[in-house]
Amino acid sequence: TDSKLPKVGTTIFSTMSQLAAEHGAVNLGQGFPDFEVPARLVDELERAMRAGHNQYAPMTGIPTLRTAIANKTERVYGHRPDADSEVTVTSGATEALFNAIHAVVRAGDEVIVLDPAYDSYDPAIELAGARAVHVALDPRSFAVDWAAVRAAVTPRTRMLIVNTPHNPSGAMFSAGDIDALQALLDDHPGIRLLSDEVYEHIVFDGARHESALRHPALRERAFVVSSFGKTYHCTGWKLGYCIAPPALSAEFRKVHQYNVFCTFAPAQHAFAAMLDAEPEHYEQLGAFYEAKRDRFREQLSGTRLQPLPVAGGYFQLVDYSAVSDLDDAAFCRWLTVEHGVAAIPLSPFYAQPPPGQRLARLCFAKNDATLDAAIERLRTL
Amino acid sequence: TDSKLPKVGTTIFSTMSQLAAEHGAVNLGQGFPDFEVPARLVDELERAMRAGHNQYAPMTGIPTLRTAIANKTERVYGHRPDADSEVTVTSGATEALFNAIHAVVRAGDEVIVLDPAYDSYDPAIELAGARAVHVALDPRSFAVDWAAVRAAVTPRTRMLIVNTPHNPSGAMFSAGDIDALQALLDDHPGIRLLSDEVYEHIVFDGARHESALRHPALRERAFVVSSFGKTYHCTGWKLGYCIAPPALSAEFRKVHQYNVFCTFAPAQHAFAAMLDAEPEHYEQLGAFYEAKRDRFREQLSGTRLQPLPVAGGYFQLVDYSAVSDLDDAAFCRWLTVEHGVAAIPLSPFYAQPPPGQRLARLCFAKNDATLDAAIERLRTL
Ligand SMILES: CSCCC(=O)C(=O)O
Ligand SMILES: CSCCC(=O)C(=O)O
Repeated sequence: TDSKLPKVGTTIFSTMSQLAAEHGAVNLGQGFPDFEVPARLVDELERAMRAGHNQYAPMTGIPTLRTAIANKTERVYGHRPDADSEVTVTSGATEALFNAIHAVVRAGDEVIVLDPAYDSYDPAIELAGARAVHVALDPRSFAVDWAAVRAAVTPRTRMLIVNTPHNPSGAMFSAGDIDALQALLDDHPGIRLLSDEVYEHIVFDGARHESALRHPALRERAFVVSSFGKTYHCTGWKLGYCIAPPALSAEFRKVHQYNVFCTFAPAQHAFAAMLDAEPEHYEQLGAFYEAKRDRFREQLSGTRLQPLPVAGGYFQLVDYSAVSDLDDAAFCRWLTVEHGVAAIPLSPFYAQPPPGQRLARLCFAKNDATLDAAIERLRTL
Repeated sequence: TDSKLPKVGTTIFSTMSQLAAEHGAVNLGQGFPDFEVPARLVDELERAMRAGHNQYAPMTGIPTLRTAIANKTERVYGHRPDADSEVTVTSGATEALFNAIHAVVRAGDEVIVLDPAYDSYDPAIELAGARAVHVALDPRSFAVDWAAVRAAVTPRTRMLIVNTPHNPSGAMFSAGDIDALQALLDDHPGIRLLSDEVYEHIVFDGARHESALRHPALRERAFVVSSFGKTYHCTGWKLGYCIAPPALSAEFRKVHQYNVFCTFAPAQHAFAAMLDAEPEHYEQLGAFYEAKRDRFREQLSGTRLQPLPVAGGYFQLVDYSAVSDLDDAAFCRWLTVEHGVAAIPLSPFYAQPPPGQRLARLCFAKNDATLDAAIERLRTL
């Protein structure tokens, strides 16, 4: 009754991870890898601690890491952000999303969110005193209906949040999406773009990740957010970053400064050493996960779950309508409790779930043995 | 012009640290130790990484760490918070302060802040859409004028922020302060208390730290914030926590969940191992810093700076009026640039600095050699 966020309950990720643990289920729910962090990162982090890098880092991130991020960005997208004024290191992508919203969204503003959407956007928007305006993606292809987005714009629209590769669907923006997005923003220059690109290096089939950073007309008004946790298999290290033009970065940093001030210093040193030294890590990440995706989909063809296409990221949506008529929340509980495989329902990603949608999300950022064990159980459905 | 936080500039701590670096000054400005983290912590953190604790921790913190915090709290204050529902691990005390404010303070509310105050309170209050109402502490003793605090209460007052031991002054709450605070809150049951106790273990002369956790009438409406960075000499590890009753913790966690979700997992394991294993670390921290304080004050008596009393924390205020008539900001720049010792002026801690105040803050959380080098320079003033 007295809550500022009355709708917020336990996040579905925690709920399903806990249910998985209670029932000894194979956990393909919450998105995290079960394989190891690259050895160099662990060694470098240890080295940094033992070298005494244990006091406050600079508020924006250590200069060598910001430079390494600029190097990587230039190598991958052909655009070099200014390490001093455009790159800020954060406590994971979640903090970056929160800061970007709080940096520019004011009480009474509207923020357009494309559903299904990651569950942190809405509460952050609400805490900023603003209102999330939800536009549904296509319930099967998860393509953006740009006419619907355009129709949702009002004079109060302050920000549009996009996410490519997309969680939970694995859909990716095409060049056509970029054109439509650009045209929309050209017509509404007051709208800021928040581009959640945490799966930027996990793209398949030779596709090109359409980062906002590639496109001058987008990046000049965008906060682009990424995550070392996703790229380096260390979701528990909580290190991410935001790239934005100087004026937006200045506002972003005001929030960051008084939100967490700076991030765990030894890990910053570890990534500063890693990024330039092993570019092949992120260059080969797509191929690494593509092999997992292909193997997992092949295995799924031996079950009654129907896999949807996955262009990027580490999640596989499956249509379970041949197996069960339960709604997705009930199905995922049943799957976890009765069949020992934890999955994530799609409805929590929606303000208004499409009626009758029978989809569940499985995370394939797992060792083969883990996926094999899951498939063995899914075969009995 | 377009900023949500137009008053926020570079924090004085970053400014002075950078100036110190540029001029090769001994840095007694920003508060951080220049000695090492306890070896056990580094070893345990390394062990946790190598044992594979590199994925998301539970949102509220790992259970063993929350239990260790409850153990420590019971041992020190005779009150055991519930590890499950009352303890939340955060990305440093700064995040805890930010979350507590955002958890309960709404647009249009007022928050009472006692000046001088740590510089993160005001921007966090503003971002929540609320207004900070400043009540000055005594400009010499830094005692609270409880009648003035009472007079500042309005129907909109939602929170009172207190800080003991106090940064920047080193003053501490007495039993009388607790009585006055309790009486005030009894008369205004809608006010929540945010008690910033990050220097809780750094108290001198046999004094007792009057934690809100000792007092049932306070803790039942309080967010109590502490910092492992301050207690374990690792300000760059960004780990802190908040203890609050279940209903307040629930709201706090809603913000935390969508702000950073969880904190760096390996460090949580390290502190879980450290807290119970070496209680002598925090039990002896007061004596450790008391020896530094006494030695530093003895040395200061050979300078023209006049040290004020310090009851707790790791800062020494000095009156420089015998040396200079500059205002405090100008004096601290001059001291850094011309005399090679960086200090922090007091005016940035105030909404309205007392006119003519001639005080600077020196951090004595430093090795003897660092303090000796500073004193050698200060002797020439
Ligand atoms: C912060 S827990 C959620 C992890 C994640 O990104 C997902 O499972 O979608
Ligand atoms: C986050 S930098 C400020 C450190 C500190 O607590 C101080 O110097 O007062």
